Amino acid sequence: MSVKVGVNGYGTIGRRVADAILAQDDMSLTGVVKRSPDYIALYAAKQGINIYAPDSGSAEKFDRAGIKISGVLEDLLSKVDVIVDATPGGVGATYKPLYERYGVKQIYQGGEKPEVAEASFSTLCNYEESIGRKSLRVVSCNTTGLLRLICTLRRHFKVEKVRAVLIRRAADPREIKKGPINSINLNPVQLPSHHARDVNTVVPDVNIVTAAVVVPTTLMHVHQVTLVFKEPVRRDDVIAVLDDAPRIVLINSKRTGIKSTAQLIESARDVRRRNDIPELVVFEDSIGVEGNEVMLFQAVHQESIVVPENIDAIRALAGLARTADETIRKTDTSLGLYRRFWLER
Amino acid sequence: MSVKVGVNGYGTIGRRVADAILAQDDMSLTGVVKRSPDYIALYAAKQGINIYAPDSGSAEKFDRAGIKISGVLEDLLSKVDVIVDATPGGVGATYKPLYERYGVKQIYQGGEKPEVAEASFSTLCNYEESIGRKSLRVVSCNTTGLLRLICTLRRHFKVEKVRAVLIRRAADPREIKKGPINSINLNPVQLPSHHARDVNTVVPDVNIVTAAVVVPTTLMHVHQVTLVFKEPVRRDDVIAVLDDAPRIVLINSKRTGIKSTAQLIESARDVRRRNDIPELVVFEDSIGVEGNEVMLFQAVHQESIVVPENIDAIRALAGLARTADETIRKTDTSLGLYRRFWLER
Repeated sequence: MSVKVGVNGYGTIGRRVADAILAQDDMSLTGVVKRSPDYIALYAAKQGINIYAPDSGSAEKFDRAGIKISGVLEDLLSKVDVIVDATPGGVGATYKPLYERYGVKQIYQGGEKPEVAEASFSTLCNYEESIGRKSLRVVSCNTTGLLRLICTLRRHFKVEKVRAVLIRRAADPREIKKGPINSINLNPVQLPSHHARDVNTVVPDVNIVTAAVVVPTTLMHVHQVTLVFKEPVRRDDVIAVLDDAPRIVLINSKRTGIKSTAQLIESARDVRRRNDIPELVVFEDSIGVEGNEVMLFQAVHQESIVVPENIDAIRALAGLARTADETIRKTDTSLGLYRRFWLER
Repeated sequence: MSVKVGVNGYGTIGRRVADAILAQDDMSLTGVVKRSPDYIALYAAKQGINIYAPDSGSAEKFDRAGIKISGVLEDLLSKVDVIVDATPGGVGATYKPLYERYGVKQIYQGGEKPEVAEASFSTLCNYEESIGRKSLRVVSCNTTGLLRLICTLRRHFKVEKVRAVLIRRAADPREIKKGPINSINLNPVQLPSHHARDVNTVVPDVNIVTAAVVVPTTLMHVHQVTLVFKEPVRRDDVIAVLDDAPRIVLINSKRTGIKSTAQLIESARDVRRRNDIPELVVFEDSIGVEGNEVMLFQAVHQESIVVPENIDAIRALAGLARTADETIRKTDTSLGLYRRFWLER
């Protein structure tokens, strides 16, 4: 059985999800919807991916640019079982009535409000409960990073509360009109930032406060996380749990010399297309334990961390895998995710 | 009685401390030591400040540049009661034997190791105990910011522990060779950063852990601070204490529209030479209280925050003021420090 999937929106996330679908053996990519016939559309064409325009107006632009398209969004919707909405934040909700009219199952991204879908989703937290849903919202990159950590540790320790400071990248590498270029923006000033609420859309019972700033960089987010447990924990036990977990890679800065997002991305440039790092990176030697408190730094690659969760969400909607372990095994093998630092395995 | 003061090093801090000394009525600026006859030396000359070269080799460079000097460092040391060392971090300690030989009292900056001086110093924490010392070390900008907050709140509440994440500016505006320009550097990866230890050089009994990252900006540092008190506190009480405290200015982002270091500095450009902000800025609407926990954002202007404390340190060494309140009143009036946001008083 092969589930037919379309991707609406072919930007940072859509492009990567489309490529990831192509790497699966239990789903097929029927096509992608792209608004403008630009260099990114040329990449899709070169890949042999069927391109659809959002509407007939946009379709003419593709004709003029000499890029062949297979129809418009509604044509795509009539052919697929699942649509992955990867349009800009807030736009996905405006498409929902159309998706419903065509009776397709829907996956939205974290830029949408939680109400857009039946449930918010993160594989390590709630895969099994999400099987057979009609729509899911894959939470954003920062929330995915926090949830991978929290849900992994919750399996072994009793988490009392989580306090996290998010130092966010200002723009993605391809975004040429965003800033700041010389400022630290409190985003927002008032605590908590929306990330805490977003974590609670998936795990409502976690006491979490997040604070976020935006800084002039494009590569990755960095989180400083403090987890307070109900009882004292041993540093070695925390490290063992994280080391054994899927989608989390421990990096030791003393062994590798990696102490920054720039060096981390540089290491990925050698081995990964687009220097993607879909794994959550936890700095092993940043892990400090003081009684019940565990403190650490982690880095989140905003462009790619949600890609595995999107693939898992397709499996959940279509009932393609019965357990989180099963979809994780399939997704992570097909996408080449690492369990150990890519240059030290 | 007027205490004669020299300043060794005329960079970011030395220039500001020299100007601040000129604004006092109980001390006089005998001269400053400058290494190169550059645009910053021209500013000193234009101010009518006596310039000294570090040694006869450097003196010749000033001759060739046509900038008049009054002698070399040792000439200055033979004339002053107190020397403020504002040389680059770690260099101050190498001058200590020379300072001692001339029997002058010494003030060092936070870039030196604590052992360089008899005690580390922060006015709101330990002015009275510092009176009559032979040498003091004014802690760094980040530590000064943390200590102003902690020592202000300690007077009214029982602080159990402090957890702070420091998002540090990468370079000062005039530094043209430092980075990063596109990275978040964990600085250091291992917790705690040195700031926690530095806070403990002044207040040894505070349980504090700090984590620090460096980001591509030049304007200010931002701290996200969590203080845990021994008993629940009311948000209004915390705000009242901070509002009433010297050297701390509360800014409400909703009223002022200031949500970033760029906007904060822009507001200071209108009213302050060099856009200096020697006050610690606490974002009022960032203050969140949850039981015993108080969380907030604060901003630290790395170039100027330690200037008032340097002036107070001179008074402590020379016994010019009996209490912290007395020196704060003199320093803050002469330097035009605000108790409320400068555009809202």
